[in-house]
Amino acid sequence: MRTLAPEGQLAVVDIGSVHTEAGAQVDEVQIAYRRWGEPAGDPHGSNNILLVEHALTGDTDAADWWSEAIGPGKALDTDQWCVICTNALGSCYGSTGPASAHPDADGTVWGSRFPAVSIRDMVQAEHRFLGELGFSRVHAVLGGSMGGARALEWTLLHPEQVDYALVIAVSARASAWQIGVQTAQITSITHDPAWQGGDYHGTGHSPDAGLAAARRLAHLTYRGEMEIDERFGTSAQTGENPLGPYRADGERFAVQSYLEHQGRKLTERFDAASYVTLTEALNRHDVGRGRGGLNKALASSTVPTMIVGVDTDILYPYHQQEHLSRNLGNLLAMSKLSSPVGHDAFLVEARQMDRVLRNFIALTHETPSAHDVAVTRGDYDI
Amino acid sequence: MRTLAPEGQLAVVDIGSVHTEAGAQVDEVQIAYRRWGEPAGDPHGSNNILLVEHALTGDTDAADWWSEAIGPGKALDTDQWCVICTNALGSCYGSTGPASAHPDADGTVWGSRFPAVSIRDMVQAEHRFLGELGFSRVHAVLGGSMGGARALEWTLLHPEQVDYALVIAVSARASAWQIGVQTAQITSITHDPAWQGGDYHGTGHSPDAGLAAARRLAHLTYRGEMEIDERFGTSAQTGENPLGPYRADGERFAVQSYLEHQGRKLTERFDAASYVTLTEALNRHDVGRGRGGLNKALASSTVPTMIVGVDTDILYPYHQQEHLSRNLGNLLAMSKLSSPVGHDAFLVEARQMDRVLRNFIALTHETPSAHDVAVTRGDYDI
Repeated sequence: MRTLAPEGQLAVVDIGSVHTEAGAQVDEVQIAYRRWGEPAGDPHGSNNILLVEHALTGDTDAADWWSEAIGPGKALDTDQWCVICTNALGSCYGSTGPASAHPDADGTVWGSRFPAVSIRDMVQAEHRFLGELGFSRVHAVLGGSMGGARALEWTLLHPEQVDYALVIAVSARASAWQIGVQTAQITSITHDPAWQGGDYHGTGHSPDAGLAAARRLAHLTYRGEMEIDERFGTSAQTGENPLGPYRADGERFAVQSYLEHQGRKLTERFDAASYVTLTEALNRHDVGRGRGGLNKALASSTVPTMIVGVDTDILYPYHQQEHLSRNLGNLLAMSKLSSPVGHDAFLVEARQMDRVLRNFIALTHETPSAHDVAVTRGDYDI
Repeated sequence: MRTLAPEGQLAVVDIGSVHTEAGAQVDEVQIAYRRWGEPAGDPHGSNNILLVEHALTGDTDAADWWSEAIGPGKALDTDQWCVICTNALGSCYGSTGPASAHPDADGTVWGSRFPAVSIRDMVQAEHRFLGELGFSRVHAVLGGSMGGARALEWTLLHPEQVDYALVIAVSARASAWQIGVQTAQITSITHDPAWQGGDYHGTGHSPDAGLAAARRLAHLTYRGEMEIDERFGTSAQTGENPLGPYRADGERFAVQSYLEHQGRKLTERFDAASYVTLTEALNRHDVGRGRGGLNKALASSTVPTMIVGVDTDILYPYHQQEHLSRNLGNLLAMSKLSSPVGHDAFLVEARQMDRVLRNFIALTHETPSAHDVAVTRGDYDI
């Protein structure tokens, strides 16, 4: 087993070439990660590795964005568990993506040469990454939203390597509504003149306006309308009058200012081409593809999997998690977050998530994994 | 009483200058309308006028867009009732709006000179229109979405002129979420280079791309995600491959093609500046403004009002109609449409709407109006 990066510090691992599900190739791929807690147990058997998967614009710093969940004494107790969080293939937080240097070493980045990737491609890259670290099994894979999609694909692509899974606020496949609203975001970026066909890096112009508009729209799908309304209602932004005789961009309701702030913040920390790449991966999310359809794929799952949803989620409505719970081959448990916040509840309803995560960990101690079942069966066969 | 336009035919009525709530002025305003059925009764007392209010991009042809509701023998039976449907101030179907000729008669249109209007401004213009026709009372005002907002404002601005009201799929005020998603649509149009500050008419360029993008987004709020998903799921558009090695605009999921069709269709029939004007009016919708707040305004209502909502509406969620039902001063009844279709259910769930409309009409026969109560009280006073 390779020595892991110092606790909490960003590190990268070379995994070589990735051949995408759709037939493209990305060479010299790196996967970035952080870890907290010390690994223990058998890297090829039962161990204490918890693989945490981030959401769309998330990064490896899970102890930051899930700060109330990860740490000594917390639900994901780093005194007991070794938490590893990778950055997804195609993102811009250390793993190879469109803004990464191209292997040609001509000083250019991948840009438009970076192919479309699927959730499965991300999992395959992560699988190679874990192999490079020296692990062929983990205790659990956990994630919400895009992270939940990856956790779910892990259970279908490499069930023998995942003892348990926690899949939060996601579905078995993209819905047409999601594709619609996600494509609106992609279009907002790719129709920004600064996009330049995806090759804007290094030109001094980037599609910030398009990315900000995409984020404003996305934010309206991440947050419940009740929570947004409770905070802003029809209030005017301080010093502005949105009720004047003529409509004017600078005379805003408070919620407009808030959304513009959300959009601007993202342009300061995220690459537009990565946003397009990861959003496109969500459009392509479909566990049924090439597996005989959605429910056949879910029924084939052997990994004990807990499903969590949010009652007010409009992006991944709760009936989608109910669908998962009905059809998964090995449902460990199901749980619902009750919150006005909507989809983002899994990131901000810390008290409820603490209960969910502690219950999940407890269940993994009480319930046999597919490996345990296999071992037991083996005993009978002797 | 003025002779009404021939049945089903578009006509316009001059109403003079409109002074908007926010302090602007529009001169030489015309309001377009159609009517079906013959007026009967007292134009200043009890009569058979049903004033039907259209939604955002609707027009005066209610017998077309509510074809299963309006006509001989139908729920709004034109053998008994005289149905009148006006075009809203600011629209582009005959009433004065940004694309109408400016009174300067210099051959230009209002364009950016057309002010922001509120739902109340629309009602005030319609009130003047009715006065020009010779009516100072109607049996009922009915409408859904923006039409529902107008019906609701009618009951607060001119309660003495409305015997009953039917308010469908709307709220007492815009929510912050609505303002967010509606502003995204406005911005999509006004940031289109062809917008030209709102003065694109006659230039040979119009912000069709921005209007189409706005409509695509709006459509995702009009239609329930279950209905859209049942129709399209993750299907590819015929002859296209949205799962290829590289993302490409021309390789679409079926839902993208459907949304693009919806966007394109609107650009062929609707003016972008009218779209901005009417959407801005929805942003400003707030029955509490200047009336001591939302619930005080609703409590002051004397017009018997029936409220209808849709269980899957994400634009005007059902809790908003529940809020209306709890706080209206004179609730006639409440009813819920159950449908996967979402907000648009009031336009497409014809069977359920037939029941709702027949119930509403029946209730107006059984329940005393504010006028009836006043008359009764008068009797006691003698």
